[in-house]
Amino acid sequence: MFTITSLQNPKVKQVVKLRDKRERDRTQAFLIEGYRELSRAVKGGIPLLSLFYSPDHFLGSNENALIQEIQGQGVEAYQVNKNVFEKISYRDRPDGLLAVASQTHLTLEDLDYKFSKEHPPFFLIAEAIEKPGNLGSILRSSDAAGVDALLVCDRCTDIYNPNVVRASVGTLFTVPVLEVTSEEVIEWLKKHQVSIVATSPEADLTFTQADLTGPVAIAMGTEQLGLSKKWMEAATIQVSIPMHGIADSLNVAAATTLLLYEVLRQRS
Amino acid sequence: MFTITSLQNPKVKQVVKLRDKRERDRTQAFLIEGYRELSRAVKGGIPLLSLFYSPDHFLGSNENALIQEIQGQGVEAYQVNKNVFEKISYRDRPDGLLAVASQTHLTLEDLDYKFSKEHPPFFLIAEAIEKPGNLGSILRSSDAAGVDALLVCDRCTDIYNPNVVRASVGTLFTVPVLEVTSEEVIEWLKKHQVSIVATSPEADLTFTQADLTGPVAIAMGTEQLGLSKKWMEAATIQVSIPMHGIADSLNVAAATTLLLYEVLRQRS
Repeated sequence: MFTITSLQNPKVKQVVKLRDKRERDRTQAFLIEGYRELSRAVKGGIPLLSLFYSPDHFLGSNENALIQEIQGQGVEAYQVNKNVFEKISYRDRPDGLLAVASQTHLTLEDLDYKFSKEHPPFFLIAEAIEKPGNLGSILRSSDAAGVDALLVCDRCTDIYNPNVVRASVGTLFTVPVLEVTSEEVIEWLKKHQVSIVATSPEADLTFTQADLTGPVAIAMGTEQLGLSKKWMEAATIQVSIPMHGIADSLNVAAATTLLLYEVLRQRS
Repeated sequence: MFTITSLQNPKVKQVVKLRDKRERDRTQAFLIEGYRELSRAVKGGIPLLSLFYSPDHFLGSNENALIQEIQGQGVEAYQVNKNVFEKISYRDRPDGLLAVASQTHLTLEDLDYKFSKEHPPFFLIAEAIEKPGNLGSILRSSDAAGVDALLVCDRCTDIYNPNVVRASVGTLFTVPVLEVTSEEVIEWLKKHQVSIVATSPEADLTFTQADLTGPVAIAMGTEQLGLSKKWMEAATIQVSIPMHGIADSLNVAAATTLLLYEVLRQRS
């Protein structure tokens, strides 16, 4: 078995480069690190380009089966030594598995089948979310609440940022995610008669009082500024989140989770 | 006005040292950076020991009023130059204000008055939460939901970690927070007949089905392992959070927020 031992190996250098957004944009590739994340990517049908593994770092006993499954798809796999893996890893506690994958880009038309499902469509809009950790956490909640798609509008954070992949614990690969402009999404939602739900401290209804049982798109903006004017004007339902303390907002991922689970509660 | 310009100034060195937990434990002091955080600390009556400010970094026009208010309490204030402030600051976007404050430690007896309030007591237990960002976000949600106190049990994260202060946006100073052992808290809750609510994937009731209108303590554990055995055994109500996707858990701050707001919803 050939093992990469040189930090100067061009494949190793290329992996490190992919932490940089420009390089990800240029190559349309991104990184997936970790057993759980990689398993979910395989389940989600994410096209992998290459795999790097370091048996010295394995934490469990299922790693070899996953490597074989990935190799079985014709993906090149490279064993690397401890040093090399620590160079390419971007986690605190590396578990010896890291892949380069190909970015996929869905369009709104790809979601049209959602309108023929049994339950009313249920979308989440994330406008201009800045922190990868928050976007990852929002993805976990979207997966758990069963949203039909997450529409990332006017993005500030690249969804293929390694920290989004990590914070999402691989749910980036199971929730359909689109990067689109607000204008396109608003037009598309109106065409399909989907209610746009915006949170606003001034709303008369709290989020548990509004009727969220029909086709809905929950729109969330930044913690500091909230949603932009175009989304507030497009909103057909405005709701507030009761705030009983000194602070005027929740963490954006926490607020998003409240709204998503309120839709679930009302529909159950 | 005397301005500290030397990075070697002992006061500057001492501030930097307080990023380290051992130094915080030894001196019983901690750092508060940022206009919003510092305003909330002043409102919350947190005893400040010294203040450092750099007018070059000010973002607004209210900084001087806050500095004067703090100085009016007899707190020593030091103007520092740009370089020095950038040395002591621990944020990405410093706004020119940083204080050293004194840690305060509440005991369970300090909370006894909560049992004579009009509404049933409402506590949050955070067992062994690891990430300062999550603990900060949990504090924001606790403030917003109006919990009576946050009880941090068998802590993994020092509540005075600068990243907790930052992620809590200063709500650390408005929510009563205690660091206590699980054994003490369980005994205290039982004595006061407070229901202990634990989340578990195996629970029969979902969190919106359980009755949370009485005196409750919501107990949250780590994402990976959940609550420890002692808490699961002490729990009088077990609830699940519906999970409709591939993942088996939410971000811990998101899950906590769901439970806290469900208490609010049921009581409103």
